[in-house]
Amino acid sequence: MQPFLAHPFDSDRLHEECGVFGVIGVTDAANFVALGLHALQHRGQEAGGIISHDAEQGFNSAHRFGYVRDNFTKQSLMETLPGSLAIGHVRYSTAGTKAATAIRDVQPFFGDFSMGGCAVAHNGNITNAMALRKELIERGSIFQSSSDSECIIHLMARSIQRNIPERMKDALRRVEGAFSVIAMTRTKLIGVRDPLGVRPLVLGKIGDEGYVLASETCALDIIGAEFLREIEPGEMVVISKGEVESSRPFGPSTGRFCIFEHVYFSRPDSIIGGRSVYETRRQIGVELARESPIEADLVCAVPDSGTPAAIGFAHESGIPFGMGIIRNQYMGRTFIEPTEQIRNMGVRLKLNVNRALVKGKRVILVDDSVVRGTTSRKIKDMILDAGAAEVHFRIASPPTAWPCFYGVDTPDRGKLLAAQMSVEEMREWIGVDSLAFVSLDGLYRAVGEARGRNAANPQYCDACFSGDYPVAPFDQLERGFRMKPNSETSGVEITGHAAE
Amino acid sequence: MQPFLAHPFDSDRLHEECGVFGVIGVTDAANFVALGLHALQHRGQEAGGIISHDAEQGFNSAHRFGYVRDNFTKQSLMETLPGSLAIGHVRYSTAGTKAATAIRDVQPFFGDFSMGGCAVAHNGNITNAMALRKELIERGSIFQSSSDSECIIHLMARSIQRNIPERMKDALRRVEGAFSVIAMTRTKLIGVRDPLGVRPLVLGKIGDEGYVLASETCALDIIGAEFLREIEPGEMVVISKGEVESSRPFGPSTGRFCIFEHVYFSRPDSIIGGRSVYETRRQIGVELARESPIEADLVCAVPDSGTPAAIGFAHESGIPFGMGIIRNQYMGRTFIEPTEQIRNMGVRLKLNVNRALVKGKRVILVDDSVVRGTTSRKIKDMILDAGAAEVHFRIASPPTAWPCFYGVDTPDRGKLLAAQMSVEEMREWIGVDSLAFVSLDGLYRAVGEARGRNAANPQYCDACFSGDYPVAPFDQLERGFRMKPNSETSGVEITGHAAE
Amino acid sequence: MQPFLAHPFDSDRLHEECGVFGVIGVTDAANFVALGLHALQHRGQEAGGIISHDAEQGFNSAHRFGYVRDNFTKQSLMETLPGSLAIGHVRYSTAGTKAATAIRDVQPFFGDFSMGGCAVAHNGNITNAMALRKELIERGSIFQSSSDSECIIHLMARSIQRNIPERMKDALRRVEGAFSVIAMTRTKLIGVRDPLGVRPLVLGKIGDEGYVLASETCALDIIGAEFLREIEPGEMVVISKGEVESSRPFGPSTGRFCIFEHVYFSRPDSIIGGRSVYETRRQIGVELARESPIEADLVCAVPDSGTPAAIGFAHESGIPFGMGIIRNQYMGRTFIEPTEQIRNMGVRLKLNVNRALVKGKRVILVDDSVVRGTTSRKIKDMILDAGAAEVHFRIASPPTAWPCFYGVDTPDRGKLLAAQMSVEEMREWIGVDSLAFVSLDGLYRAVGEARGRNAANPQYCDACFSGDYPVAPFDQLERGFRMKPNSETSGVEITGHAAE
Amino acid sequence: MQPFLAHPFDSDRLHEECGVFGVIGVTDAANFVALGLHALQHRGQEAGGIISHDAEQGFNSAHRFGYVRDNFTKQSLMETLPGSLAIGHVRYSTAGTKAATAIRDVQPFFGDFSMGGCAVAHNGNITNAMALRKELIERGSIFQSSSDSECIIHLMARSIQRNIPERMKDALRRVEGAFSVIAMTRTKLIGVRDPLGVRPLVLGKIGDEGYVLASETCALDIIGAEFLREIEPGEMVVISKGEVESSRPFGPSTGRFCIFEHVYFSRPDSIIGGRSVYETRRQIGVELARESPIEADLVCAVPDSGTPAAIGFAHESGIPFGMGIIRNQYMGRTFIEPTEQIRNMGVRLKLNVNRALVKGKRVILVDDSVVRGTTSRKIKDMILDAGAAEVHFRIASPPTAWPCFYGVDTPDRGKLLAAQMSVEEMREWIGVDSLAFVSLDGLYRAVGEARGRNAANPQYCDACFSGDYPVAPFDQLERGFRMKPNSETSGVEITGHAAE
Repeated sequence: MQPFLAHPFDSDRLHEECGVFGVIGVTDAANFVALGLHALQHRGQEAGGIISHDAEQGFNSAHRFGYVRDNFTKQSLMETLPGSLAIGHVRYSTAGTKAATAIRDVQPFFGDFSMGGCAVAHNGNITNAMALRKELIERGSIFQSSSDSECIIHLMARSIQRNIPERMKDALRRVEGAFSVIAMTRTKLIGVRDPLGVRPLVLGKIGDEGYVLASETCALDIIGAEFLREIEPGEMVVISKGEVESSRPFGPSTGRFCIFEHVYFSRPDSIIGGRSVYETRRQIGVELARESPIEADLVCAVPDSGTPAAIGFAHESGIPFGMGIIRNQYMGRTFIEPTEQIRNMGVRLKLNVNRALVKGKRVILVDDSVVRGTTSRKIKDMILDAGAAEVHFRIASPPTAWPCFYGVDTPDRGKLLAAQMSVEEMREWIGVDSLAFVSLDGLYRAVGEARGRNAANPQYCDACFSGDYPVAPFDQLERGFRMKPNSETSGVEITGHAAE
Repeated sequence: MQPFLAHPFDSDRLHEECGVFGVIGVTDAANFVALGLHALQHRGQEAGGIISHDAEQGFNSAHRFGYVRDNFTKQSLMETLPGSLAIGHVRYSTAGTKAATAIRDVQPFFGDFSMGGCAVAHNGNITNAMALRKELIERGSIFQSSSDSECIIHLMARSIQRNIPERMKDALRRVEGAFSVIAMTRTKLIGVRDPLGVRPLVLGKIGDEGYVLASETCALDIIGAEFLREIEPGEMVVISKGEVESSRPFGPSTGRFCIFEHVYFSRPDSIIGGRSVYETRRQIGVELARESPIEADLVCAVPDSGTPAAIGFAHESGIPFGMGIIRNQYMGRTFIEPTEQIRNMGVRLKLNVNRALVKGKRVILVDDSVVRGTTSRKIKDMILDAGAAEVHFRIASPPTAWPCFYGVDTPDRGKLLAAQMSVEEMREWIGVDSLAFVSLDGLYRAVGEARGRNAANPQYCDACFSGDYPVAPFDQLERGFRMKPNSETSGVEITGHAAE
Repeated sequence: MQPFLAHPFDSDRLHEECGVFGVIGVTDAANFVALGLHALQHRGQEAGGIISHDAEQGFNSAHRFGYVRDNFTKQSLMETLPGSLAIGHVRYSTAGTKAATAIRDVQPFFGDFSMGGCAVAHNGNITNAMALRKELIERGSIFQSSSDSECIIHLMARSIQRNIPERMKDALRRVEGAFSVIAMTRTKLIGVRDPLGVRPLVLGKIGDEGYVLASETCALDIIGAEFLREIEPGEMVVISKGEVESSRPFGPSTGRFCIFEHVYFSRPDSIIGGRSVYETRRQIGVELARESPIEADLVCAVPDSGTPAAIGFAHESGIPFGMGIIRNQYMGRTFIEPTEQIRNMGVRLKLNVNRALVKGKRVILVDDSVVRGTTSRKIKDMILDAGAAEVHFRIASPPTAWPCFYGVDTPDRGKLLAAQMSVEEMREWIGVDSLAFVSLDGLYRAVGEARGRNAANPQYCDACFSGDYPVAPFDQLERGFRMKPNSETSGVEITGHAAE
Repeated sequence: MQPFLAHPFDSDRLHEECGVFGVIGVTDAANFVALGLHALQHRGQEAGGIISHDAEQGFNSAHRFGYVRDNFTKQSLMETLPGSLAIGHVRYSTAGTKAATAIRDVQPFFGDFSMGGCAVAHNGNITNAMALRKELIERGSIFQSSSDSECIIHLMARSIQRNIPERMKDALRRVEGAFSVIAMTRTKLIGVRDPLGVRPLVLGKIGDEGYVLASETCALDIIGAEFLREIEPGEMVVISKGEVESSRPFGPSTGRFCIFEHVYFSRPDSIIGGRSVYETRRQIGVELARESPIEADLVCAVPDSGTPAAIGFAHESGIPFGMGIIRNQYMGRTFIEPTEQIRNMGVRLKLNVNRALVKGKRVILVDDSVVRGTTSRKIKDMILDAGAAEVHFRIASPPTAWPCFYGVDTPDRGKLLAAQMSVEEMREWIGVDSLAFVSLDGLYRAVGEARGRNAANPQYCDACFSGDYPVAPFDQLERGFRMKPNSETSGVEITGHAAE
């Protein structure tokens, strides 16, 4: 996912792979889905899809590469998606896979079962997908995509249950990992969150009889829906005829929400776990200023994602906040077939330093995270070229030292700067006057845990910082990934795969 | 022009109609032009054009609708524009004209003269274009576009001078209004600014023998060119073989630069008249806080254009700065054939209020200007819906009460809120707790004129605020526009048309 | 299928639904497939697809709407289809179905089995597809298309055989109807014809080690391949490493080739059953002239499909042959979003009468068939408007009185003119001076059966003329189609479905 | 121009460069123009343009690359061309020019004059265009296209006449060469033919008040217009309010119509000079059979253009006519970015020999003309490969030994086979058993001149065969073209240029 206030060097950030949105009980539901997906565009920019159902015209679907606003706003396309029930999905392009995404990899997926059609969209990552796929192919399933999410619909197709919600339970009990799933039948909208609730999913109300499921509350705001509550970890809701039925297909569980959603993924105007994301980020800046103060003349953000923390840092430290780096607002998706000169321009196409402001000043630069670190070096160069006297980096997250296997696109561990170096080594390699990260406890305080992280039983999934994986990454272990020595997955045991 | 840190309700802003960029003495000049135009994209988003010249392949051109980055980055297109000399233009779509722009209206224009080809691109507005066009048609010129700028090349075609720079002088002496023109022959890059220097034009150096002409310094930064100086009001430069020849075709004159470039049009990281645009805008916020203080809990900007002034206001007033309004970064150009629902969404597609932040607070909203005022009302509604206790508007420019005829797309005077109402009436109509504009003197102080505006001999063109037009708008007067009673144009007399 | 020398009123003809082509053992196999499909374009114009396999890059596919020549000739696309083994398919758009074809309906279909991938392309029609689809869905298969042909690959996926050719035998033994199937694995090219051999399939040789399978011999000619032989009814060939293995998965059977392929579907330069299609059609004209002579001044064809029979008729009758109707060669596919005037022009867009030639003459018009008859009326009108003295229709096939269920798109029986009227009634309805069809025996004589049709054991499938269906149309009977009273299907019993 | 029954190796034919069509006095005139241009598509396939005029909406235009049917049939485009008066143009791509045609080269051209707008479309070639263009540029005209036809509108713009028809007379008196011009003002439709009437132009009537001007009668047929008469050589008609005014701006003259229009350019269903083109071509075949008989088994045409002459030859000789070569009807415009294999296929993509028919036979092949001769060799190879015993070429025109400068795209004289070799040398080079061309007198007889060609005062322009140019090709002579020794242009002297 590209964050809402995105980082300019997007290829040096972590990315979530999708956002989901569904609505029932409204006229022209697909239009609402388009708006909701537009509000969730930061969670995936490569492609989007919508499936709708109309009593007369049945199921209809459209899947397109590119932004929601460039596709799903056109009258001519939206007319092909009639009905009062629809779901949609935006997808991030997993960088580095050998082949380009094909349109058939774009969700929602659809299956025609004997009791009727079903569409499914998924945010997260199935950690035992490889094993499931192999087993399903052995038994005669034909996969149409390279997406792991397709397992869910094939597991449903083979379930002997006679209604679709029960089939979904059957399927999801076989699946391990992190997932927020939305689905629809001819008459029902369904939402499920995995037992740990790693990925977000919220419930909203619109009009008299309408309900909405969405990855974030900002997608409720855009359509004027009322935010009711989050779907709970391990909960399934089935919505039909104005009724919301809740059940708990996986038994009792304690949540471990992804703490990086607070740091970078979610939109600052969303509310997660009862807290404003913007306020949390501003508070991280405050914690940083307390933990790692420094004398300087100016606090700047690496725009746009570092801005709330920079405002917090400036406020706490009393050092003035200024716009030292200006972002070009006309940058969009990747270039197609660019000239070499364009390819080599990278930075300057996106940013320009406000020379007159930084010249001669001691500058504190607040950034959200350090992944490969290559970006930090380039930004430091630009600031120094413009005549800054000193450059101090303050990072609004702890060092990112472990890959995420729960729906976030992370580089191999070997490419994570913090997996290879100490903070002092990183400071030297980046070439700045000082470098500091917020502590893990500081981050927990900023999200409202006054006592910081509960090491015995962490309140969040923070595997990317701690290496403490709440669900064993089955396929990855098969492929040779090594967990932290002596670690155990700290989460609840999921019985699905083992029990099989 | 859409400003670099643009306003979200772009249709309720003033717009400049273009940006120009030219370069000589570099390999693959068109690539540099593409980069320069990308940096000037805020001055015009509808369309762009590039003409290049190569010793072997002669003149080549490409004109395209849409963003520079979507067209002029492709290898396959850029290969068709070889050579070491090129100029380009980005164009704003003049909203409200009955017909859509045709591709033939996109500059640069080209003419084949007996002594060789010449390409011309123009930023500004020719105030006697209608009269000139009529005269040229009478004599057998065939206009290919509806653009007033085409007059220039026809006047050149008919000049009896035997070289192109002299023909350009002939042509521009016939032309009235505000213009920064760049042109190229097979071997020369030419730049001219009108006697008042209303529109900007700067000169830069790149490599050993290369020179650049651009609307703003930010376009020099992107290609790593060195900023040499501004072209002076009334100056013409002819650049060839590493030499810059300067002349003054219009006789001596005193400049009247457009003060609105400081307020809104130019990029904050550009330097105009030796001053940082960002710093000027921050200073306007400081002036505002001094002139119109108010008790409140939070200073917010209408993003993104109001941000520097909001930072200045917060700094001066001591009231915390926060991001109360979040802008959706995935909004792009206008929608093509949108559904009605999308059309009606306007605001929410672009902005969302950060509810958790503004709830219960007394909020100061800093905006750059008020044109029709419709936007201000909508934003006020959103802020109040989110639970703000009070809303105070502070505007970083004086009331916009007069149309601009010098290259800015302004509504008819009847649609300018400030032409119809007093400030108190405006406050009531918008429905806010208080409303204040920076004074004209305050604005002059912010741009560095410590004593404010020199009423007898104003340092800038501020006609949109003062109704004091430095050049009589000939065509407009013909069409029935009425100047301020008892006013005279305060600028130098241009002898061109009258002398004819 | 649109015939090679097509009829101008294509919507009033019968259409076959596809052509298939596969090649193994050549460099850049997909290029050969593109050429072969171009030669088979008359068998389907709506869409085409190619799947190739390369040892390093695995399977790749491309499916496109439109002509082969507009898609599969481009370097940039063909580069994505590397390898020495490839198959392809062209598809006719079944007019009148409610929904437009989706790209996922375009063959070849692909399935990933545990022993590797397999691509399948199918020409014909599966008469028990509805029943099979229902059964497969019950067991958990997810269909991706609305195409009946997809059954084949799902049946293969569920087979317990451990190699793909055996799985294909399993699958095709379950399938009823008319089919010529080609398929490919990573190393093998496979071809199968149904027990009656209703649809054509030929084998060719190219280069030292290369083999080709194609619907018609004209597709061998275009790539310079040598025509070896037809695949026999009920035969399967598996080609690998320069070897062709033949087997007979369905037991012994006698062929019943589609006689309409001779009349209209196949290209005149193809050779079927050892006979030139052109010569057969010319001979039908000869038979017509013998059976239904008439005094006249001129023999004309309804271009282009009626031309060979018209030449034969002219030769036999001694009446001069002339081009009385001229076809506009710039007509292509259907219009997209046409103006009403264009929609109403139909005839004149395609044909013009050669007025100077027909004026005052008694004209014999030779056409290939009469389906709805609407076309015949329009042509008659045009000829009379141009001043012809008399118009005599001679039809190069017997009356088309029954729908085809074996891969040809036929109107409902109620819309077939010959199902509703006697020949004299038809003559009157069309409004011509005389009307005659070739007799069924005459047609059999023209294809080389000197004694005509063997009523007890017909040599061809001629169900569209005789109502004698060699395979019971299972799904159609379920839908309420009524066979000829007291008729039995005259063909071999296929045990597949019944035995289940 | 590609002929209506086109030759398969179009690049080895002569091509005319355009067709024109205009209509006044009908509702939605642009729709009629679209239909007319579709019927004239054989005269130019590269691009087309339409300009219409509506009392309320003024002039509107659309210019597009590609076929008429792919552009000017769409509701959405045609709605932008309202009004009861419209003209259009189809353009052939002049092969071999260095640069591709730009859209601004596509006619009709438009000029805004002081008395109103005027659109002009031109079929033919202005032989003094280079000289005129130079002169016009000297005086300040700016050319927008590389088309010679643009001279006309610039000459009109500079005329001191106060109405448009008089300005057109002024302009055309300055122009030399062959031209049929149509033009329109806000209220008038204008047509002019040069004094020799080299290119065709006909007048038709539609409805009560409507009139049509078109290159050929087939374009009247498609819209149901009545053919009134040909515009005479040297005649101008001005049509307005249901009246046709005729005048003769160039003084008296005798026509020299292009005889190649009969041979190849015009559609066979058109009527020229009172004669059916089809019948003329058939008659050429008869003449050929009389002049150059040969014993053989089969007469075949090189499709489609050779067919009428082949029918005539077969009829006269008594040798059966058959379809020995089958043309692929799915070939369209040039390939874009084709693979090398496709590029090398040329012939086979378009034609296939009907092997079963020609095998063992002595074949007479009737073709329309020999230009470079490369095609003839390839066709001969194909026929022999298919097993023909003998191949005899009969050509339905005299040897093409001279380039055309009157609107036909001809190769340089050095590339015309007949300019380099005797008929016997050509026979040997092509490699056929015999080769014969119709004689010039035979051709004249076929067009109805019973006594053949009048050498002293030829009835037609036959410069391509005879080297006898009726108008001196001014620009070509400047460029170094050498006329036939001792020849004079046999036509009327045009006083325009000389008088200047």
